Amino acid sequence: MEIVTCRAPVNIAVIKYWGKRNEKLILPVNSSLSATLDIDQLCTKTTVAASNKFKTDRIWLNGREESLDNPRLKKCLAEIRQRARKRKSSPTKDGVTPAAMLDWKVHICSENNFPTAAGLASSAAGYACLVATLAKVFKVEGNVSDIARQGSGSACRSMYGGFVQWLMGEEETGEDSIAEQVVTEDYWPEMRILILVVSDHKKATSSTAGMQSTVETSPLLPHRAEKIVPDRMVAMTTAIEEKDFKTFAELTMKDSNQFHAVCLDTYPPISYMNDTSRHIVRLVHAFNAFKKQTKAAYTFDAGPNAVLFTLENDVSELLSFINHFLPQGDEDKEDVFIRGLPADIHTPSKELQSAVTFDPIPNSLRYIIHTKVGPGPVTAEDPELGLIDSNGQPKSLK
Amino acid sequence: MEIVTCRAPVNIAVIKYWGKRNEKLILPVNSSLSATLDIDQLCTKTTVAASNKFKTDRIWLNGREESLDNPRLKKCLAEIRQRARKRKSSPTKDGVTPAAMLDWKVHICSENNFPTAAGLASSAAGYACLVATLAKVFKVEGNVSDIARQGSGSACRSMYGGFVQWLMGEEETGEDSIAEQVVTEDYWPEMRILILVVSDHKKATSSTAGMQSTVETSPLLPHRAEKIVPDRMVAMTTAIEEKDFKTFAELTMKDSNQFHAVCLDTYPPISYMNDTSRHIVRLVHAFNAFKKQTKAAYTFDAGPNAVLFTLENDVSELLSFINHFLPQGDEDKEDVFIRGLPADIHTPSKELQSAVTFDPIPNSLRYIIHTKVGPGPVTAEDPELGLIDSNGQPKSLK
Repeated sequence: MEIVTCRAPVNIAVIKYWGKRNEKLILPVNSSLSATLDIDQLCTKTTVAASNKFKTDRIWLNGREESLDNPRLKKCLAEIRQRARKRKSSPTKDGVTPAAMLDWKVHICSENNFPTAAGLASSAAGYACLVATLAKVFKVEGNVSDIARQGSGSACRSMYGGFVQWLMGEEETGEDSIAEQVVTEDYWPEMRILILVVSDHKKATSSTAGMQSTVETSPLLPHRAEKIVPDRMVAMTTAIEEKDFKTFAELTMKDSNQFHAVCLDTYPPISYMNDTSRHIVRLVHAFNAFKKQTKAAYTFDAGPNAVLFTLENDVSELLSFINHFLPQGDEDKEDVFIRGLPADIHTPSKELQSAVTFDPIPNSLRYIIHTKVGPGPVTAEDPELGLIDSNGQPKSLK
Repeated sequence: MEIVTCRAPVNIAVIKYWGKRNEKLILPVNSSLSATLDIDQLCTKTTVAASNKFKTDRIWLNGREESLDNPRLKKCLAEIRQRARKRKSSPTKDGVTPAAMLDWKVHICSENNFPTAAGLASSAAGYACLVATLAKVFKVEGNVSDIARQGSGSACRSMYGGFVQWLMGEEETGEDSIAEQVVTEDYWPEMRILILVVSDHKKATSSTAGMQSTVETSPLLPHRAEKIVPDRMVAMTTAIEEKDFKTFAELTMKDSNQFHAVCLDTYPPISYMNDTSRHIVRLVHAFNAFKKQTKAAYTFDAGPNAVLFTLENDVSELLSFINHFLPQGDEDKEDVFIRGLPADIHTPSKELQSAVTFDPIPNSLRYIIHTKVGPGPVTAEDPELGLIDSNGQPKSLK
């Protein structure tokens, strides 16, 4: 039995992916760019075991067996096996997949270290982890981000650490629609990320359905994809390479806003941000106005949660400011409100408090995760950390 | 002393005006189209008295004297006087302004019949009424919508009844940037309008400041103004001429959404709609889905209030549906919740109730005004209805 365990990261786009030009191959209408988040705070862990004793491919997600009828899951498995087959003729440094192994069935076990209900994009980390782990098991090397892309578009960006671009590509086959690292996770070590998990009970439109509807109905989307994003990709890459926080932050906010603008231009319109999201937008602009410099940026994905970017030196003040205006509610006092990396929380200065004109609104946020930019998928060497036992069965089931 | 009293209507754009190409002359970046609302429900009333005994021009708004330093007010007065001067050489059917009268000062008294705090656009009705009344006093005939436009852009559309287009024009002078009637108020008599006044305490960005910021920062606005609106103006005019409610309604909703999309694409972003506004959007789409036909449309201006369009036969069911999910709160029970034209309110059918998945949210709306399409400015013949007494003084002061 071959058994491998990997952990893979969540990523947050600063130039947004919204809209496919090919639904089946998951080819986007524009390139996108993201920060990879540290797996110490948020990750998916996946163990894949391959054995000639397994009768069928099986998968357990968060302790529950799921059907492998899912076409995207099947596609990832089939693509990895096909690539392993091809590689037989050109050995990689990991060696060649033994011919026999190509017919082995797999058991896959995968878990998130964060609640799915938190509304954090789990499919990107999930498919990235699946493909990274399968690639290890079947000894497939090289860029396999195009396979992860076929699981969930943005998963391809979770295949690398640091800042990562997903090039939209030109080929009809999708072979050039791949992720590439822009800079490593050590390049801009001061970058910090705050995830503000917003209290919300509304079931949001799924991003797959949402972006399809935008492609079909928004007259603004083609202009965004063809005329605006290409320039923003260049400007964003330069800003990151030059560690130009002001440009990075402003582009991040503008691109988040434009993504939500094309959602609103969709028919029927799609609204992912709620009143709490809009309060966060106002807080960030007020913070920057108060500091007389762009010290923080927000970005929102297909839900009301905010992700803020700031530099290490400003984390304490920004987090204290957010915590003051969107404090923990009394009911939730038993839960840890600020999670992840340590930070000094204090009462904001009177001057900073008067930078916004609204009163604190408790219970708007469920919790805050403080994290940083991190590496791509990593292999866990210790078998104790795996999710599958030596008999090829999940260690824990729900 | 010459004394005239007029009432002028509010108008609601279905193709939105957002963005000026010339701030001073108030020339828009695109044409727009609106419905004129019946003055029986919402109007501004203005009395203008002109006399050789008045020492200076004076103005009272809603019972309070205001400064005439306001450049837009001064501009309207100056333009009317200039046009009266020109008309001396070409008499109109109302006759010629007596030469002496050109030097007379005016007393202007103006009131809205609805609370300013309701957040309904009052400046359009206000400037339309001012210009219509001044034109009567100074015997200026013809299209004076370009003068109203220089008071408040959308005021030019309140100079006519029915459905009205504001042609953006091409001239630098603005002389061809005028309002024209598309159809009279009797053309589509089944059209009904519901104004949903949303509870909100937030001070919204003024539309003047908001649209300036959009023009300066939104990369999507030029595409909307140049590529999208021209086609929509044609399609909307045709839909109204053909009384094609489905096309009218869908274009109305799409254009409202796109206007709010460019607001969101502004930097910093502008959000006029709140969570209640978004609930209304969902209710209207749910209603149409349930009816398997587009039976209602929403549009939102620079604030959270919704304006719904529907036909006479569907008012009762739509209003009952809205009233069920966004009912009056207990605290406000003493106020009339549904105002204006009569309508039968009933409990919606179980099937219709299950068309949306959220529970009723009381206190979301302050009240609802039920109205229809109406005429342009009208002159009140009865001096009893005027706001200025025979001595040239306001009848009531605050």
